[in-house]
Amino acid sequence: MPCKLLNLCEYETHKLVRIQSVRLGSLKWTFNGVILMFICIMMLWNKEYQEHDYVVSSVTAKVKGVALTSLPDVGDIVWDVVDYSGPSQGKNSFFVVTNVIVTKKQRQGKCPEVPPYGKVCRTDEDCVKGFWDQHSHGVQTGACVKFDVTRKTCEVSAWCPIETKKKPPKPALLASAENFTVLIKNNIRFPNFNFMRRNILPEMTESYLKRCQFNRRTEPSCPIFRLGDIVKEAKENFSEMAVEGGVIGIQIKWDCNLDGFLRNCLPKYSFRRLDEKESNRTLYPGLNFRYYITENGVEERTLFKAFGIRFDVMVFGKAGKFSIIQLIIFIGSTLSYYTLVSVIQPFLFNLFQMQN
Amino acid sequence: MPCKLLNLCEYETHKLVRIQSVRLGSLKWTFNGVILMFICIMMLWNKEYQEHDYVVSSVTAKVKGVALTSLPDVGDIVWDVVDYSGPSQGKNSFFVVTNVIVTKKQRQGKCPEVPPYGKVCRTDEDCVKGFWDQHSHGVQTGACVKFDVTRKTCEVSAWCPIETKKKPPKPALLASAENFTVLIKNNIRFPNFNFMRRNILPEMTESYLKRCQFNRRTEPSCPIFRLGDIVKEAKENFSEMAVEGGVIGIQIKWDCNLDGFLRNCLPKYSFRRLDEKESNRTLYPGLNFRYYITENGVEERTLFKAFGIRFDVMVFGKAGKFSIIQLIIFIGSTLSYYTLVSVIQPFLFNLFQMQN
Amino acid sequence: MPCKLLNLCEYETHKLVRIQSVRLGSLKWTFNGVILMFICIMMLWNKEYQEHDYVVSSVTAKVKGVALTSLPDVGDIVWDVVDYSGPSQGKNSFFVVTNVIVTKKQRQGKCPEVPPYGKVCRTDEDCVKGFWDQHSHGVQTGACVKFDVTRKTCEVSAWCPIETKKKPPKPALLASAENFTVLIKNNIRFPNFNFMRRNILPEMTESYLKRCQFNRRTEPSCPIFRLGDIVKEAKENFSEMAVEGGVIGIQIKWDCNLDGFLRNCLPKYSFRRLDEKESNRTLYPGLNFRYYITENGVEERTLFKAFGIRFDVMVFGKAGKFSIIQLIIFIGSTLSYYTLVSVIQPFLFNLFQMQN
Repeated sequence: MPCKLLNLCEYETHKLVRIQSVRLGSLKWTFNGVILMFICIMMLWNKEYQEHDYVVSSVTAKVKGVALTSLPDVGDIVWDVVDYSGPSQGKNSFFVVTNVIVTKKQRQGKCPEVPPYGKVCRTDEDCVKGFWDQHSHGVQTGACVKFDVTRKTCEVSAWCPIETKKKPPKPALLASAENFTVLIKNNIRFPNFNFMRRNILPEMTESYLKRCQFNRRTEPSCPIFRLGDIVKEAKENFSEMAVEGGVIGIQIKWDCNLDGFLRNCLPKYSFRRLDEKESNRTLYPGLNFRYYITENGVEERTLFKAFGIRFDVMVFGKAGKFSIIQLIIFIGSTLSYYTLVSVIQPFLFNLFQMQN
Repeated sequence: MPCKLLNLCEYETHKLVRIQSVRLGSLKWTFNGVILMFICIMMLWNKEYQEHDYVVSSVTAKVKGVALTSLPDVGDIVWDVVDYSGPSQGKNSFFVVTNVIVTKKQRQGKCPEVPPYGKVCRTDEDCVKGFWDQHSHGVQTGACVKFDVTRKTCEVSAWCPIETKKKPPKPALLASAENFTVLIKNNIRFPNFNFMRRNILPEMTESYLKRCQFNRRTEPSCPIFRLGDIVKEAKENFSEMAVEGGVIGIQIKWDCNLDGFLRNCLPKYSFRRLDEKESNRTLYPGLNFRYYITENGVEERTLFKAFGIRFDVMVFGKAGKFSIIQLIIFIGSTLSYYTLVSVIQPFLFNLFQMQN
Repeated sequence: MPCKLLNLCEYETHKLVRIQSVRLGSLKWTFNGVILMFICIMMLWNKEYQEHDYVVSSVTAKVKGVALTSLPDVGDIVWDVVDYSGPSQGKNSFFVVTNVIVTKKQRQGKCPEVPPYGKVCRTDEDCVKGFWDQHSHGVQTGACVKFDVTRKTCEVSAWCPIETKKKPPKPALLASAENFTVLIKNNIRFPNFNFMRRNILPEMTESYLKRCQFNRRTEPSCPIFRLGDIVKEAKENFSEMAVEGGVIGIQIKWDCNLDGFLRNCLPKYSFRRLDEKESNRTLYPGLNFRYYITENGVEERTLFKAFGIRFDVMVFGKAGKFSIIQLIIFIGSTLSYYTLVSVIQPFLFNLFQMQN
């Protein structure tokens, strides 16, 4: 009989010792019950029976508002969105200029470097032709020329006159940017579940969207934000931050449950300063960049050092949906705890018997 | 003997009851076999024996094409890539202007606000000096001035004349952007596996790249895309979308298997509209931004409201490679199912015996 | 007695066969010990007892340096950061122009296409009105006009004169950009652990930051990088790369352990070229983009084809922290290995007995 030779026809089972005992029986069932409960709670709590997918997102932001400033040497100027935000093309990040240093009518030429960037010199021998370092505004010509009544500095080939002011005006010129508003449109998608949503909810009417403004308590889902409110929510002071600029993160969190009647998928907004307030001046505190407007083609430019707040919209998101495979995997992984029980029980039983 | 005292020298094993039965034996082996097969299939299907790594990617995009438009008040204009795409620096995202509203020769000054943004007034008392809201083009001066023959509106400090047109021209001025093409270069890397690839495959010759154009069926791996085809693949109508603009996602998916002869790592392209077609005018449908060209330095500008399509290139990717550690972990996690079997089998056995 | 009927009061335990044997006992304990050790090592090595969180990061970059170049047809020009980097707004990515082709005073008009883009023609019949392809600089008018002494090409409506040069100057005009430096500020956050850090360490004094420069060996944590060093670390040659441009990735890796005295959270920098050196000219090797400066408003422009290096700052990061739940889950998953042991042991035992 091949069956016998191969030992395939044998069935082995353990011989059991059955002990009749109310105490031991209830102990065993309590034990098993507690573990089962623990596993079920863990499963429901962490939604282990769900498979997950991560968000794919698209953001467009539109800033609105105008400000009237009086720039020194330039006069009263109205700033509209093109002026203070640039051609941002509505991406994940937008910038609002809050302060500015203007250097008018620069031309390529030669002029004395501005201290403390250029060292003070006495004769041409103190200057090295072709030299520049990280703080120079131009390349040294080798000459030592008069900077003001008392000082001489090395001459440089540069855009002249050189930008002189270092510290931005205080209070900030566009401190009123606090009252600008921004509409953030965020479309999300969970590709595996083929589920789409956006932060403008279907129940929002046109008239609601015309007047609403985000407020954590009263209007937590309005997609229109006042810049001052955003900064306040990030626990910063707008008029202080406006002076040197900075980076604010606007976080949109989508924590979605796509299961039947528990369905729930709403965005949550939070705000946070992303850069650090800097006391150290060598580290270029705040956020600024320079741009220019040409006056006569490539030959002449007006340089703007623009300080401002960059708002980075960051979208996080996870969706969960019931999955039979996930459930099977989870149950499989918990079975091992029953192994633990079958190891511990005999010990408990012995312990129990000894006590009696 | 310390060995005895410490009980370390004992070996415990279960006493087995061996039952000779063809039926029970085959039942047992079928049972185990089915589970083993299930585990193996699951393993091979989900490639549980692999460790994974996520993609690090770099994208450059280069748009090509020219268009001839006749702008009202400006005349015939040729648009080349600098005009319609801006200095995009070849990043993950590129923009193509498809429609435009031009406001010529704006200067800082005072002019009547345009209804419906500014309310119609009768006397200066209807206007509030310094007032502006989210829809204003400037800050009110407090005067009520003539807007046209019949109406008076509040005067504002603004860039004058104010942009008046609201709706973009239809059909779109640069509807022919449909025929522009874009070359997308995508280099990817899986850092943990030190594996690199790019979407321009080694077998593509120079002459192939000169003439090829992406087509889902006939040329699914050509890296040159016609904009019209991209929009069509995203199930949108280019000439419709060109009017107000929008956002299209170009998804490149790298699903790589780096194991020996199963090696397979090719990009798959898919396209999708990322924003939502908006019927609601308060929500600024489509995508547009404003930019200007200065005419006489900072004093005069020509304002462009550019509508267009932004193409976001999104790269997703995952690579799997055989890993002995992953295999051990997976086998470990499946062992628990055998525990389940050893729990169920005695019941089955009893059931079986009873039936006989 | 309901207890009996429901069979709830029974407690089952296996009858054990206890074998007194030094050999078998020590075998068993060695076996269990080895597995326990293996599990513990695996746990400590992979820090399986930790829960993890991924980094949220904010980057600002500030390039410094000036360069003196002599552009053909333009003369000596000083390039400062606005000229070579553009209004970058300090985002994750910055661009440094290293080479440039200038086409002066372009105007909208009609001029002969430049070969090889436009085909050489003999009569007007060789040209098709309205025709353009991917390599055209404009839309054909239908006329065949003189290009130079020997050749005639189709006339196009375009920005005239057409950019003629194709290959960038060699050596690169701004090869001295090698000596520019960049300060990278990177603030990170692990939101779940509410832990923040930045790459400017608390022990760095102002004077240190004024003079330090990143060097893998001597100053591996200085946040100021010389562009030449970055490119060298990426195993590329700056002066070669400067000619056609390219993309360099600056990777900042935060691998943090937030547990008590093992606390360790420092950034590690690495550099890598992200695009591919291209020999194939149809694929537009390197990185370049065009921009223009208007000369007389919208009518006239000076076109710059700027070649340069884009530096993409990429931040990766993971933090681990002890978590009791993770520990329980890990122990659970290892228990199944003990099941394996209890299956294998009897076999080993039999094997052992047979040998004796």
